[in-house]
Amino acid sequence: MLNVIKIGGALLNNEKLFEASIQKFCDVTGPKILVHGGGRTASDWMEQIGLKPKMIEGRRITDDATIEIVSLVYAGLNKKIVATLQAHGLNAIGLTGADENVVIATKRPPNPIDYGWVGDIGKTGVNEKVFIGYIQHQIVPVMAPLTHDGKGQLLNTNADTLGSVIAQAIAAKMDVRLIYLFEKPGVLKDVDNDESVIKELRLSEFEAMKTNGEIHSGMIPKLQNGFDALKNGVKEVVICHPNELEKLTVKTSLIL
Amino acid sequence: MLNVIKIGGALLNNEKLFEASIQKFCDVTGPKILVHGGGRTASDWMEQIGLKPKMIEGRRITDDATIEIVSLVYAGLNKKIVATLQAHGLNAIGLTGADENVVIATKRPPNPIDYGWVGDIGKTGVNEKVFIGYIQHQIVPVMAPLTHDGKGQLLNTNADTLGSVIAQAIAAKMDVRLIYLFEKPGVLKDVDNDESVIKELRLSEFEAMKTNGEIHSGMIPKLQNGFDALKNGVKEVVICHPNELEKLTVKTSLIL
Repeated sequence: MLNVIKIGGALLNNEKLFEASIQKFCDVTGPKILVHGGGRTASDWMEQIGLKPKMIEGRRITDDATIEIVSLVYAGLNKKIVATLQAHGLNAIGLTGADENVVIATKRPPNPIDYGWVGDIGKTGVNEKVFIGYIQHQIVPVMAPLTHDGKGQLLNTNADTLGSVIAQAIAAKMDVRLIYLFEKPGVLKDVDNDESVIKELRLSEFEAMKTNGEIHSGMIPKLQNGFDALKNGVKEVVICHPNELEKLTVKTSLIL
Repeated sequence: MLNVIKIGGALLNNEKLFEASIQKFCDVTGPKILVHGGGRTASDWMEQIGLKPKMIEGRRITDDATIEIVSLVYAGLNKKIVATLQAHGLNAIGLTGADENVVIATKRPPNPIDYGWVGDIGKTGVNEKVFIGYIQHQIVPVMAPLTHDGKGQLLNTNADTLGSVIAQAIAAKMDVRLIYLFEKPGVLKDVDNDESVIKELRLSEFEAMKTNGEIHSGMIPKLQNGFDALKNGVKEVVICHPNELEKLTVKTSLIL
């Protein structure tokens, strides 16, 4: 089973959580791919140079100045992760969508909301053979949340989505589990109670919770990406804390 | 013949020169590796966040804050180059020394001058098999001026040196030409006269010009790196303007 493991920006923007998450990633046996975010780090850098991050419904508006800085921040963070994995004895390679053309995307249309330099990935956007080639050589691909349009432009791409589409593309060739690492122990029934983890979340329940507002806005696209993965051949989709990565005891499993 | 082509920061920091240099690189036939700098872009970013670049004899002092920002800037520039090469139909992969452990280095000792997080590459520092593997698959490696120490730390590494040591390591396996692209048409006898290109520069002449001060300070390490490459099996070392890259008509060739 290939594990596609997404580590979000909140875990990577704190030195202690970064080290702990990477250590837990290293402890996972078998083939694996790391997909990372970095939004919080990007926002911190933007504020340092006097740019104000612009968000609509938790999604970043990526204008000209923003794509320039997020490209640096995500690529730099990617290389920091690769160097850290090498120190742990894992042979890793850092990738954006442009490298070996692994993920090609299309700039999102400007209507109804102009998100700027944001990439949407179509059915044939993932070059899964490249990922599989690395895995077969015991090299761990580390994917930054950047795609490209094939015309020289890097595009900002949501890491949850990227993890999902990469998992889907590879699922046609081998068994894949998609894991979203999270600051919380899973999807919580009560957001203030870490003991309230929903162990199994069915698509129908998710739809109901979405309708009645029980699920937090940032969680909706993440879960949607997870269910999309299940619908498209990914064997298992799990949301858990990094500490649970090795044994996956406490977690939320998505079920169709 | 494999061409290892180094493009410096001065060429990359200007949008027009960037495009022109990349176009000329694409026009070169046969296997090739691109090694890039980025010092000027890094200095620009540092000034934006209120850090003052520190230099001694034209070499950057890479303190904690500096390695953090140069990692982002060099990695980001690397991915911009890769995306641009893809747009030109060249399948490229962006690398730092940490990726697949291609170039491992040692932090330079702090005496007599403490350069900070700067990497020196030893005899066995280059993992040439990785470069050769990519070349054999018609993939163009694009190398950022960053190495790593194997303990999780990225190190700032001079791109002229990096080009030279990569060329040397591969020279044991195949014929290699090292090309330093330069804003000027070559090494000039008179720095104010672009017609005064020294067509062939012998090591003995270089030593004499160094002694009598005829060669400009920044040029000395570049030429030293070039002669080191020749001494260690590289077939040809050339300094020229990007416009001469395809035909190599006007150039300075180094000769032992």
